Amino acid sequence: MGKKNKQFVEKITAMEEDFAQWYTDVVKQAELVDYGSVRGTMIIKPYGHAIWENIRNELDRKIKETGHSNVSFPLFIPESLLQKEKDHVEGFAPEVAWVTHGGDEELAERLAVRPTSEVLFCEYYSKNIHSYRDLPMLYNQWANVVRWEKTTRPFLRSLEFYWQEGHTAHATDEDAAEETRKMLDVYTDVVENYLAIPVLRGRKTEKEKFAGAKYTLTIESLMHDGKALQSGTSHHLGTSFAENFDITYLDENGKSQYVHQTSWGVTTRLIGALIMVHGDNRGLVIPPRIAPIQAMIVPIAQHKEGVLDKAYALRDRLTEIVRVDIDDSDKMPGWKFNEYEMKGIPVRIEMGPKDIEKEQVVLVRRDTLEKEFVSLSELETRLPKLLEEIQQNLYDKALAHQKEMTSVATNMEEFKETLENKGGFIKAMWCGDIACEEKIKEETTATSRCIPFEQEKVADTCVCCGKEAKELVYWAKAY
Amino acid sequence: MGKKNKQFVEKITAMEEDFAQWYTDVVKQAELVDYGSVRGTMIIKPYGHAIWENIRNELDRKIKETGHSNVSFPLFIPESLLQKEKDHVEGFAPEVAWVTHGGDEELAERLAVRPTSEVLFCEYYSKNIHSYRDLPMLYNQWANVVRWEKTTRPFLRSLEFYWQEGHTAHATDEDAAEETRKMLDVYTDVVENYLAIPVLRGRKTEKEKFAGAKYTLTIESLMHDGKALQSGTSHHLGTSFAENFDITYLDENGKSQYVHQTSWGVTTRLIGALIMVHGDNRGLVIPPRIAPIQAMIVPIAQHKEGVLDKAYALRDRLTEIVRVDIDDSDKMPGWKFNEYEMKGIPVRIEMGPKDIEKEQVVLVRRDTLEKEFVSLSELETRLPKLLEEIQQNLYDKALAHQKEMTSVATNMEEFKETLENKGGFIKAMWCGDIACEEKIKEETTATSRCIPFEQEKVADTCVCCGKEAKELVYWAKAY
Ligand SMILES: [Zn+2]
Ligand SMILES: [Zn+2]
Repeated sequence: MGKKNKQFVEKITAMEEDFAQWYTDVVKQAELVDYGSVRGTMIIKPYGHAIWENIRNELDRKIKETGHSNVSFPLFIPESLLQKEKDHVEGFAPEVAWVTHGGDEELAERLAVRPTSEVLFCEYYSKNIHSYRDLPMLYNQWANVVRWEKTTRPFLRSLEFYWQEGHTAHATDEDAAEETRKMLDVYTDVVENYLAIPVLRGRKTEKEKFAGAKYTLTIESLMHDGKALQSGTSHHLGTSFAENFDITYLDENGKSQYVHQTSWGVTTRLIGALIMVHGDNRGLVIPPRIAPIQAMIVPIAQHKEGVLDKAYALRDRLTEIVRVDIDDSDKMPGWKFNEYEMKGIPVRIEMGPKDIEKEQVVLVRRDTLEKEFVSLSELETRLPKLLEEIQQNLYDKALAHQKEMTSVATNMEEFKETLENKGGFIKAMWCGDIACEEKIKEETTATSRCIPFEQEKVADTCVCCGKEAKELVYWAKAY
Repeated sequence: MGKKNKQFVEKITAMEEDFAQWYTDVVKQAELVDYGSVRGTMIIKPYGHAIWENIRNELDRKIKETGHSNVSFPLFIPESLLQKEKDHVEGFAPEVAWVTHGGDEELAERLAVRPTSEVLFCEYYSKNIHSYRDLPMLYNQWANVVRWEKTTRPFLRSLEFYWQEGHTAHATDEDAAEETRKMLDVYTDVVENYLAIPVLRGRKTEKEKFAGAKYTLTIESLMHDGKALQSGTSHHLGTSFAENFDITYLDENGKSQYVHQTSWGVTTRLIGALIMVHGDNRGLVIPPRIAPIQAMIVPIAQHKEGVLDKAYALRDRLTEIVRVDIDDSDKMPGWKFNEYEMKGIPVRIEMGPKDIEKEQVVLVRRDTLEKEFVSLSELETRLPKLLEEIQQNLYDKALAHQKEMTSVATNMEEFKETLENKGGFIKAMWCGDIACEEKIKEETTATSRCIPFEQEKVADTCVCCGKEAKELVYWAKAY
């Protein structure tokens, strides 16, 4: 590594040294976000936004394919409406930003800036659902939401963030259960196959479920530092909102019934997951399928005659098959190498006078930094294949890491030792008592991440109290 | 018209009878919006949202093609920041919704829910622009904004609406002027060629320009009732924001200079324009290029053997070339005809046993209600062509209406008489004195819509004061 190269990389803290600082450095140096003027808010810059748009477009397509329609519901929720579901308001009230004045006038009733929109959809459903023919009602919206958090970090926890929130109403409990699971499958698909992040799938405990839900399904992923990140949740709301908002329909026999609801969402947190799963000490590593730029052409000795012309011709050729760009600025190639490594662009294409002579280019993949020489005539075949190899390799590496960082604990001593020395997911049996869950959190700061769909019996007794175990739970420290 | 047909159409008030009520009826019956629980807010329903997404996608593509990047800036603006540009805050403060509490805590400083985001971008630019190499900075965001309006109507004026706001910074006044004009051209392109709405293009008077701008360019369109609607604005902000926010750069000679800024936006108001320009007494008429569904297949006598199979096969065939859907519900064909006329779907495709026998379908165009029989083998050629004919016809009709509704007035008597008896645009000379502009507004409620780029001299003297005229102005009553 040349001197310049080294200097540049030193702009970010090594992840082994200080993971939190590494994260902050990458987010800043890769130009994903800047801080807003209100504490805890973020400005999503062009590169960060392009990543979000790619995630959003992919997910939006799948949400529509599964029969949902996009809508836009208002930002403001009257306080009285928010209070209609008791568990729900208790869960969200401490984090609500309140509008009290419009222009010069003080409002008769405070308005919540939406922390989530269940109650608005409930009010709408109560007016617009009459008969079983109106069901299911399958709505989704892409929106900004506000939660007044004390400590914040870009993408991971911020006062305002961006998400999609699905809200559906169904005739039966089974239909709602099927929807809840279907949307978890959609999230799994996008996160695993596009973001290249393997996930654990399961149900949240009563303590960790969504405020007001019957149950919550979740996908959990593991960051490079061994901490978990909840990456998407899908809630079966049962009939408790319907009862509070009087959302009923006449069934085929003319009998009035409560609807069964769901809600589900993923957020800009996914970008945080992307950074912490794939990133390294050179910066971001973006999976090809969602990379705004999949290949960056860096001309070598571009002042020499013909180099730039050939590079532009290459760009025009490749535009047909990949998302390609060229850096023809007068900065040194070494600077450009570092810059696009920092931004995690999957493939760098180098092309200099010697390559032109040999009718070849150099491909450098971001994930392994391996170089290969490819003849120009084979590039249209090789480049898409290489991008798929990178996509697969990122997933495989992340999965290997997740497996390696998953341990079993059968007693608290083991639990604490593993958590302290190794981190990651801990598989441990649980009796089902919330007291044990709380004790584990208090003593270790680890929380229950999920009760996995794929159950195993790693012991007979609860890791905490030693009583008879009910089910296997994954535990971890989490973001 | 059969009895059922008639009944259905009577759900909406005739536009000649009460245009405002017609508008409200259409918005509701075509299922574009519903009212939110907070006064003046709207719920954009699936069909309305699909129209907005099509407008947005088209515009977003053009905004990117012209070199702009999407970003997301925060929803909240500290009060002190909003107050930095004097004209700007005076223009917006009366309409601001204020957040005063976060959770249980009263905030040290009130936060404005963004009415527009100039000041946030200014603060960002002041920190991030250093050298001429950083310019131009070309940002855009799609966002919700809040303005505490007293009287509201869906799409036209609401407490919360959706828009894109472009914010750019340039090295020179000329560069900013070019950008201002370029984005007006982009708006013109989308509104004329996709929404099929002809526009007047020009500059706003000092009185009507954006609060804090050097000047504002505008596109103005004419509704069916003869009132104008401002459909998009592009502001040259000059250096006044730069001076207040200290946004400077070092030029090529190392000298510190203020940047020259622009901002520009279009909103969900465009949907209001769409309704009021093309709609009729049967409901909406959506131009094919932005119609969520371009052709709706209505099977006739669908219980007869083979009809539905053929209709599905037709749908599958047409999916390749147009946005097509089928209504295979057990509702009567007459109900379906009315429903999709109400929703303004450009073409209805009828197919019954006789048509199948003759290997043909019936195409009914929404704009003229004309029927034509087309053989199945020619459908792939005919249907896209028909859609383009409809697109063109809608534009031509709207342009003819706009021309017919544009009059000349050379004195106030003529002005008032034309405005009262005919409405529409009035071309009249103006001395340039704001006193005349205010007097005209006071006496007629008409406002200056724009000083058109294409100037004519329709008289020598000001229509109001009779002094020497400076320029031609288009006046109208406006939404
Ligand atoms: Zn226990
Ligand atoms: Zn005058």
